[in-house]
Amino acid sequence: MESDVKPAQGSRSQQRYEQVLDAASECFRRNGFHGASIAEISKLARMSPGHIYHFFENKEAIIAAIVDRKIQGWIKLLGDIEQEEDVFASMTQLERIETGVAERTASEFAGLWLEVQSEAARNPRIAAIVHEADARVRARLIQVMRIAREARGIVSTASDDAMVEVIMASFEGLANRAVMNPGFATRDVARVLQVAIRAALEA
Amino acid sequence: MESDVKPAQGSRSQQRYEQVLDAASECFRRNGFHGASIAEISKLARMSPGHIYHFFENKEAIIAAIVDRKIQGWIKLLGDIEQEEDVFASMTQLERIETGVAERTASEFAGLWLEVQSEAARNPRIAAIVHEADARVRARLIQVMRIAREARGIVSTASDDAMVEVIMASFEGLANRAVMNPGFATRDVARVLQVAIRAALEA
Repeated sequence: MESDVKPAQGSRSQQRYEQVLDAASECFRRNGFHGASIAEISKLARMSPGHIYHFFENKEAIIAAIVDRKIQGWIKLLGDIEQEEDVFASMTQLERIETGVAERTASEFAGLWLEVQSEAARNPRIAAIVHEADARVRARLIQVMRIAREARGIVSTASDDAMVEVIMASFEGLANRAVMNPGFATRDVARVLQVAIRAALEA
Repeated sequence: MESDVKPAQGSRSQQRYEQVLDAASECFRRNGFHGASIAEISKLARMSPGHIYHFFENKEAIIAAIVDRKIQGWIKLLGDIEQEEDVFASMTQLERIETGVAERTASEFAGLWLEVQSEAARNPRIAAIVHEADARVRARLIQVMRIAREARGIVSTASDDAMVEVIMASFEGLANRAVMNPGFATRDVARVLQVAIRAALEA
């Protein structure tokens, strides 16, 4: 489920496309999916509504593109991890985990992501968008996890699917935690998370 | 931050109070905090709006009572764990974790909780409600965690606060995962989560 028109990388049109996604992310975060209007998004993006409709048919298509952009970032990160010599060490590296914690707990991300997920829980069209995107991340994470474990000779008794769920739940839940208890110590949490993720990968 | 009038345990009035919370939970989950109206809640609860206003001043007060009811349940559970002989074993017992996974991934819970958190991310009054409630759970979890670790002679290098965040993030994130990838195997996930939680407690 892609947005209607996806402009070429590096083009002027792509810049505008990204500008719409940034403005829409901010509007969804501030006012929720239903509270955000194309009029408001166009105002924040400093573009006419017609321009926005050139790229996106409706708010669902904007959400699909926002989710796709996020997912592309995570898939790229997994590709980087896969390129490194010691994939297990790379996956569980403290600095990497700390960056992940910081990303997930940043209020711009946490508020937007919780809104997308909470809308997905009640809106079948948004649910379809996130299911498809999540399946891509899961598949990629399973590949990288397998390489990491094989290189260390870890024979797992747990299923790949269950491992992925636990690792993804720990990261996803950081957004919820940032809302429930803002301002916890990122570095300290990353240290404990590192221990928990290593254990899950060896389960 | 409590609801305005909290009726006595076991009274007829308490039954009605719970009925309002059940109906409101369902309305918030289905239509979001802003989409849900007192009129709709009163219809689903089969009660007059006047009756609802007798208990609650507004929708925020209903959210406070819903969150409080959830938190009371978790605090009671921590009390039960604390009573058992081997607190570490009790905290990391597979059946207990599996029950937690099932509770967190049930669509009634996941949708409601994500909506509360996503509203808390943008609404300072809801944020204040969840911060206060979360602080109570964290404080209780830290107490029980300390007993569990001391009994096993575990000397931690990690901070209690960071451990609590990682354990709570893994559970909180299950609601997000249930939306992103509905229908994963509860038992398999509980097994991996057990390994990860044990590791976090020993960090």
